Amino acid sequence: MSRTLYDLAAADPTLRFSPYCWRTKLALAHKNLDFETVPWRFTDQDVIAFSGQGQSGGKVPVLVDNGTVVHDSQSIAEYLETTYPQAPTLFGDAASRALTGFVKQWTEDTLHPTIVKIVLPDIFKLIDPKDRTYFRQSREPRIGMTIEALAARRPEFLPPFQAALAPLRDTLKAQNFLAGVTPAYADHIVFGALKWARTTSSTALLAPDDPISLWMERLLSYYGLRNQPPASSA
Amino acid sequence: MSRTLYDLAAADPTLRFSPYCWRTKLALAHKNLDFETVPWRFTDQDVIAFSGQGQSGGKVPVLVDNGTVVHDSQSIAEYLETTYPQAPTLFGDAASRALTGFVKQWTEDTLHPTIVKIVLPDIFKLIDPKDRTYFRQSREPRIGMTIEALAARRPEFLPPFQAALAPLRDTLKAQNFLAGVTPAYADHIVFGALKWARTTSSTALLAPDDPISLWMERLLSYYGLRNQPPASSA
Repeated sequence: MSRTLYDLAAADPTLRFSPYCWRTKLALAHKNLDFETVPWRFTDQDVIAFSGQGQSGGKVPVLVDNGTVVHDSQSIAEYLETTYPQAPTLFGDAASRALTGFVKQWTEDTLHPTIVKIVLPDIFKLIDPKDRTYFRQSREPRIGMTIEALAARRPEFLPPFQAALAPLRDTLKAQNFLAGVTPAYADHIVFGALKWARTTSSTALLAPDDPISLWMERLLSYYGLRNQPPASSA
Repeated sequence: MSRTLYDLAAADPTLRFSPYCWRTKLALAHKNLDFETVPWRFTDQDVIAFSGQGQSGGKVPVLVDNGTVVHDSQSIAEYLETTYPQAPTLFGDAASRALTGFVKQWTEDTLHPTIVKIVLPDIFKLIDPKDRTYFRQSREPRIGMTIEALAARRPEFLPPFQAALAPLRDTLKAQNFLAGVTPAYADHIVFGALKWARTTSSTALLAPDDPISLWMERLLSYYGLRNQPPASSA
């Protein structure tokens, strides 16, 4: 029985910051599945060539579950739900799964773009030096400016981030988790985004008593991960 | 057996534009409940005094269901779910209900503020002349400028509206309704916001072939309301 997750790492191998890898780590915890992680850098293409993602460049998370290889966080979540149906459900019933689809799109279309503008220059400093050329060449065309120009504009990106968080904050004032009394994959998706922000930002983005910070702690506690990050095993 | 809904109307009594009243009309249709509507204007306070909302001013929707009076769209939805449990569910299971809470907050915190900036001056022209003093005095402090100043800035409010819609549009490219194969209250909440925009905006805000427009038509068709708005009975 072996289960290995290739998990994006910074120069410091214990610093794991990918929002998509965090989704998978929480989904595995939700399914009560043990796993080891392998710290992976953007340019370690040969290491995950076995995942068959083709010449355009492979990405993590890549999960190897007793010999079965699955890549892409959404595919991994669906694989886990199908393969381990006796464990707690990630998606709930059909309506809950569909609503989780909206939470995913909100996270990727609204929340991620506000975060990336803030933390991209911080990430550039944190990643392994061997990744920096790839990172600059792949990210600067997407953001339409240099990393240094983005860094200079950081203050203007903070208010849109806070504005985007309003519905999340207001929801978490009224309920423990996005999925209700206990967390589910909708929580994992949004947590991934904010853990990415928290682990990379050079300044604190949320006060410790913010309902969103409290929810993040509650989520980690629920899975017994508060003082034991699941990424530290490898 | 009688069921009456007090429904916000413009000077034209057939023009019903309240996003909250639309939630209730769709929730009633979802529960297969017939109802009559009474066109109501902002200053018709005496007409809904029986709803007991107090001196700060009553609002619609107000539902009178065989003598039971319920106000506030959320309270009405919960009342309908409890009172008519054999009819199709509005909220689904506990996780689905909780995720609907996030959709509600997203609608009210992110979507409504982008819409109100665009349509408030249009609404001012459409409402009954007797409502105009109330409307101006209540809305201008909230928006921090005159209705005329807001109207002059309309072009700058269109891009944020489109940006806010991205997660909704992307979700509806992948599934029929927010709640999946069939609609539920999460759909009603978001539909209410966009119906409010559509019925009041002086310019079309969405192309007819936009996935969001197609979803709105699909939702009305699902309830048999496409050519028969439920507000026309009174």
